[in-house]
Amino acid sequence: MSGAARRSRTNAPHVNADRLWSRHMDLARIGVVETTGNCRLALSDEDAAARELFAVWCRDAGLTLRSDRAGNMFALRPGRDPGRAVVAAGSHLDTQPHGGRFDGVSGVLAALEAVEALNDAGIETEAPLAVINWTNEEGVRFAPGLLGSAWFAGRIADETLDNIVSADGARFADEAARSGWSGDMVPADLTLDSFFELHIEQGPVLEDAGAQVGVVTSVQGLCWLDVAITGRDAHAGTTPLDARKDALLAAGAILVALRRTGLAAGPEARVSVGRLTAATDAPSTIAGHVDLVIDIRHPDGEVLARLGRECAEACRAVAADYGCEAEVSERFAIAPQQFDGDCVALVEDAALALELKYLTMPSGALHDAANVAGLAPTAMIFVPCRDGISHNVQEYAAPEDLAAGADVLLHAMLERAGIARRPDGQG
Amino acid sequence: MSGAARRSRTNAPHVNADRLWSRHMDLARIGVVETTGNCRLALSDEDAAARELFAVWCRDAGLTLRSDRAGNMFALRPGRDPGRAVVAAGSHLDTQPHGGRFDGVSGVLAALEAVEALNDAGIETEAPLAVINWTNEEGVRFAPGLLGSAWFAGRIADETLDNIVSADGARFADEAARSGWSGDMVPADLTLDSFFELHIEQGPVLEDAGAQVGVVTSVQGLCWLDVAITGRDAHAGTTPLDARKDALLAAGAILVALRRTGLAAGPEARVSVGRLTAATDAPSTIAGHVDLVIDIRHPDGEVLARLGRECAEACRAVAADYGCEAEVSERFAIAPQQFDGDCVALVEDAALALELKYLTMPSGALHDAANVAGLAPTAMIFVPCRDGISHNVQEYAAPEDLAAGADVLLHAMLERAGIARRPDGQG
Repeated sequence: MSGAARRSRTNAPHVNADRLWSRHMDLARIGVVETTGNCRLALSDEDAAARELFAVWCRDAGLTLRSDRAGNMFALRPGRDPGRAVVAAGSHLDTQPHGGRFDGVSGVLAALEAVEALNDAGIETEAPLAVINWTNEEGVRFAPGLLGSAWFAGRIADETLDNIVSADGARFADEAARSGWSGDMVPADLTLDSFFELHIEQGPVLEDAGAQVGVVTSVQGLCWLDVAITGRDAHAGTTPLDARKDALLAAGAILVALRRTGLAAGPEARVSVGRLTAATDAPSTIAGHVDLVIDIRHPDGEVLARLGRECAEACRAVAADYGCEAEVSERFAIAPQQFDGDCVALVEDAALALELKYLTMPSGALHDAANVAGLAPTAMIFVPCRDGISHNVQEYAAPEDLAAGADVLLHAMLERAGIARRPDGQG
Repeated sequence: MSGAARRSRTNAPHVNADRLWSRHMDLARIGVVETTGNCRLALSDEDAAARELFAVWCRDAGLTLRSDRAGNMFALRPGRDPGRAVVAAGSHLDTQPHGGRFDGVSGVLAALEAVEALNDAGIETEAPLAVINWTNEEGVRFAPGLLGSAWFAGRIADETLDNIVSADGARFADEAARSGWSGDMVPADLTLDSFFELHIEQGPVLEDAGAQVGVVTSVQGLCWLDVAITGRDAHAGTTPLDARKDALLAAGAILVALRRTGLAAGPEARVSVGRLTAATDAPSTIAGHVDLVIDIRHPDGEVLARLGRECAEACRAVAADYGCEAEVSERFAIAPQQFDGDCVALVEDAALALELKYLTMPSGALHDAANVAGLAPTAMIFVPCRDGISHNVQEYAAPEDLAAGADVLLHAMLERAGIARRPDGQG
């Protein structure tokens, strides 16, 4: 057990679970859909309103707000040593169109709550702290997703960013300005010591294991394969079954084969098809062409590459069985991202010190943390969500789980930033 | 061999293959799409232009044109005995939006060509003849399909017909009037002796067998099942394969199972899915809901009913295997329609007399003849089409096959109508 853990157990600050929950509910009143859901697309009026409420809370907590070209928001708390690099935490406030109240929001509010807990305890840190709201994580209004953190990490050029056009025809730079959060801060102004992102798991693993916290070691790699299946249009009534080249039937058999391929690669493999489009849409027509996209994920880069090859081969072989042809092309691949060992250890130490049941696990979803990991030591903390449901108005995380995760975040940040002064004079 | 067949071989009139082909090509210039295709939706400007050209040919052939409330066109040739019921033939001039040059058109032009051949040969029949163009067979602009013949057969009420609204927002009665072919003829004005419809097969059976003519004994029965598959939306990256309720995967497995069910029911069974829609459309989402429509056909009503039950059971069982639920409901069912034995025999006799290779077969597709069969003895003649392709700009029927089919039609009509007078005085 580390020093941080020993200290936490005896004399640790804690987050205020009620405040953390009530802020979730306050934000959830902006952009309500279907009673329990939210729609706050990036840089929309609803996103701007959520940003304004967040800014009010930050200012009330004594934080200084800055923003950058991408509209990323940085709420800064000075450290005793202004020369030290910043220990940061955060996530995103934008949502899916029929999204929930926790995806992203919980990571921003937990980071703010960690600062509030330090304020409440009268603790000054050695290093400065920052609470960050990354712009357009969801990638619904502007493509690609993780946009703000990608630009901050130098992965997207200024001009490219400015000229991205939204699904509703608006230019990114114009919408960032309209939101009031297009600022003059540049990445070089913020030297990061480390970054921690709390997020709901968006899957069922923690809940199924009865764990309250996930210590996230990596973001698994991702590969998308475009598959074009060509058969022959035909009349459903006139064409004998054995004379058909039914591309939709071939696609169905491919889905079944892909599941077998995924299962054979072990419990960490993810293989699925969530987009499938037939060129014709008529009950009495045999579809001559179908397009689908395979989403493949694995925490091991080599296994991911092998799985991609096996899926492509399965598509071609099964299509041929049905008299069709499958063309497979890779749309993109993202290598697995390992998080920083020291930061991951701090998260695990905090969970131990707080006597929380936890799992170490890869992240199945992409997160802003994967971009920030290219700039500074990074780790993530997962909180269970009910039935693993996310990107859905039914998304739910329990107040006590959110508070436990925020306490882990607080302890990890505090250990990383160092205590300069505390009211009892131990600093 | 019947009397008709014997007479045909020795002293028979024949259609003019060149005229028949050139009229196909003349009509194909109206509403051209993708060079070899046509778009003439029912009662559109293009359909009106095709009707006008057909009317010119009919008048030039000495026929009298009438039309009814549905815009059905009747080109009448008197018989020696005006008291006898009318021997009719025809099909439809409207097309699919990306349709071919033969579907429907060939049946109208073959009927007209049969009359032209009688004119050329100076033959008067005992019974009157009629060439018919049924309105809106395709059902693309106005639903349902086979509309004109259904109304004529008393299956749709006047007011219902008038008030059908097209996909483009126009009222049927207004469009029929605008076309110039809303007429005052009523079904009671036309006592039918019999009806013959020549049509391209729209499947590969004749071509594969090397046959030039299909003697159509029935229109097979049809049943559509709506299937709603419910699983659970989930994140493709975070949800382990064995924790999913993937409705799209279940749908894929259902397609494979339906094919097995269809194959087990013998070579005449048709089972297919041409419409499949997932409630979500995102590569990284596990689809929680999928709707699909199963098209089931068989010439035997009892087998059709059993197949429907087996398909529904397969859907429910396979969905359960994937943790999903399938709700199955019958959208509609049309019983198989047997054609008249005497009329079918006349068609077969004509094919024999003309020494054509023919097959007796059910029709896989629905046709206006199925409606007319409720009014009068009816039969159909199929002509092969290349690769079985139809509802497609690549649709093609060879001039010699069209002429052979039209000769069969001519002989069957002549046998049914009786010869009153021929130039050589045999009448």
